Amino acid sequence: MQKIAAFEPPTRLLMGPGPSNVAPSVLQAMAKPLVGHLDPVFIQLMEEIKSMLRTAFMTKNEMTFPVSGTGSAGMEFCFVNLIEPGDDVVIGVNGVFGNRMADVAERCGARVTKVEAEWGKIIEPAAIAAALKNVRPKIVAVVHAETSTGVLTPVEEISRLAHEAGALFMLDTVTSLGGCPVKIDEWKVDAVYSGTQKCLSCPPGLSPVSFGPKAMEVATHRKRKVQSWYLDVNLLASYWGQDRVYHHTAPISMNYALHEALRLVMEEGLESRWQRHKDSHLALKEGLAEMGLELASQPGHQLWSLNAIKVPEGADEAAVRKRLLAEFNLEIGAGLGPLKGKIWRVGLMGENSHRGKILTFLSALKHTLKS
Amino acid sequence: MQKIAAFEPPTRLLMGPGPSNVAPSVLQAMAKPLVGHLDPVFIQLMEEIKSMLRTAFMTKNEMTFPVSGTGSAGMEFCFVNLIEPGDDVVIGVNGVFGNRMADVAERCGARVTKVEAEWGKIIEPAAIAAALKNVRPKIVAVVHAETSTGVLTPVEEISRLAHEAGALFMLDTVTSLGGCPVKIDEWKVDAVYSGTQKCLSCPPGLSPVSFGPKAMEVATHRKRKVQSWYLDVNLLASYWGQDRVYHHTAPISMNYALHEALRLVMEEGLESRWQRHKDSHLALKEGLAEMGLELASQPGHQLWSLNAIKVPEGADEAAVRKRLLAEFNLEIGAGLGPLKGKIWRVGLMGENSHRGKILTFLSALKHTLKS
Repeated sequence: MQKIAAFEPPTRLLMGPGPSNVAPSVLQAMAKPLVGHLDPVFIQLMEEIKSMLRTAFMTKNEMTFPVSGTGSAGMEFCFVNLIEPGDDVVIGVNGVFGNRMADVAERCGARVTKVEAEWGKIIEPAAIAAALKNVRPKIVAVVHAETSTGVLTPVEEISRLAHEAGALFMLDTVTSLGGCPVKIDEWKVDAVYSGTQKCLSCPPGLSPVSFGPKAMEVATHRKRKVQSWYLDVNLLASYWGQDRVYHHTAPISMNYALHEALRLVMEEGLESRWQRHKDSHLALKEGLAEMGLELASQPGHQLWSLNAIKVPEGADEAAVRKRLLAEFNLEIGAGLGPLKGKIWRVGLMGENSHRGKILTFLSALKHTLKS
Repeated sequence: MQKIAAFEPPTRLLMGPGPSNVAPSVLQAMAKPLVGHLDPVFIQLMEEIKSMLRTAFMTKNEMTFPVSGTGSAGMEFCFVNLIEPGDDVVIGVNGVFGNRMADVAERCGARVTKVEAEWGKIIEPAAIAAALKNVRPKIVAVVHAETSTGVLTPVEEISRLAHEAGALFMLDTVTSLGGCPVKIDEWKVDAVYSGTQKCLSCPPGLSPVSFGPKAMEVATHRKRKVQSWYLDVNLLASYWGQDRVYHHTAPISMNYALHEALRLVMEEGLESRWQRHKDSHLALKEGLAEMGLELASQPGHQLWSLNAIKVPEGADEAAVRKRLLAEFNLEIGAGLGPLKGKIWRVGLMGENSHRGKILTFLSALKHTLKS
């Protein structure tokens, strides 16, 4: 038989686009003994997770729970349950994740109208309004925090436009939840998904989602079955709801981790957590300015949790990242698509949104750029 | 904000249909520091996982890796990549998971021919042969080890029939992999999926899968895109293959756990592990016979890892399970579908396939039945 050594990961400072580092108690939660997926104590844990997720999303939606897959599974969950072949969908595209939404929606049989904006800029309500003059979509979907560009699109006006047009409003909050205001009920968001490995500071593996009453109405009155059995909200509602009917075997240890991560979010309080992410972002910008560096994303709409830094002239983008990893155990992210080679993506998420870590990054970057 | 206490699970002996208990080093693996999903050390870990999974599946298939979801996501992975609307599929149904296969395949647009057998009996090759007289399917699919009934269907003859009819052969090995012979190349299995939380003794959250060359040929030459973006093997091959193109953020900690669980499988050796599961099954049967109890599944085809015990007359099926959990921290499973109330399902999987645990279970059951 093969002889393979036990894996001993280095201790990285994860300041890329996620995963971010997590609290020691979150790591330790996963090392706790397993229980069954229908055990009364696990069911109690599920209820507490649902309740804390409702607080984090600022919603009363009953159907608020973690999908057993990473953030992209949550995106797919939202589309497969709401779309039937031939449905029209309007999607804001200003980065990788808007494009991914369009791809996922098309695979569900949707006719997609893309409302595009330059990468690094927000989706303008006026552009959505213009699209809604030509199409009456079932869904209007946008990415709140574009992880690929570091831009935060304000969504209240877009939500209003969507509802005026009789559409559901869907939101990607993968990189915003827990790091800046995400107000699902106040903003009238009908369907939302997120990830665990960003501002919630939990390892990747689950995707918190929430469906409001109108989305549930659509999902439960479909003409044909949801194309994914694994992600069918009608089946999942029987497991995560009060019936407790076996569906799939839930990832027990990942749910332990999410429970602990959410507990820490509750302990800190949402407003304090948002303020901390804002302060960190401003501290980073100040430090960068002293080095003559600036952010690439649209001023006034820069995301606190993910900072797209313009690579200065003369610097070798990839070499800098490699050296930061090799010499400082410090991971930052590369640009994607049209921004490849032009930006570094620096995440200040959850556990890593602290001044000490920002100073570490700034010093390491300064050292690397000058030598 | 909400005040919720940290979760402290009880120490259960998990002898139901899974999850089973895992080794302490597997739990500890998840508590190790996170690295990024494109970190060179994580890529090395991915390579080692792929290599060990090939050994476990007894295959040389390049495309052998864990899907980022539980066993049912692996089932869905196999069908969504291989089926296009209108394709014919023949599925053996002798329990819950054969029915689930049929449901998943229909959601992909397949025309499903079910070859049914009584629950607790195997799928007979003659029944598959009879079905193949009326339909030329793209896929013949069966469940190797039916977790809902405790039966192991021999599949070599069915595989031969499938290939003779020009079909791909697909196999569910969720409850067999690591607990009894599973020989993907020798048996000419084109597509296979499994789970981590059964005989591999790893927490639930990943689904090991393997596609052979003929399955890859079908998946890469489809007429229309795979309906699931998350499970599209064409995209996943770029991340798990040599290109390392970002697809989704892999569940880092779960992959740590799987790496360690597979390492323990390699250390023990497949044949020793199978023998241990066989010995445990025989020891359990002997103990049950002394109590006047017997298994419900077809003699000669009883699964070593999951034992369906007939509930004796006069015993309250659910009350016994509840007492075992409350008084002994011991979880066993209930019957499903037509077997509800008629059987208990006792898993002897991985870490729990040991004589000491069998004696614990037998004593606890004896005590509970007589008082």
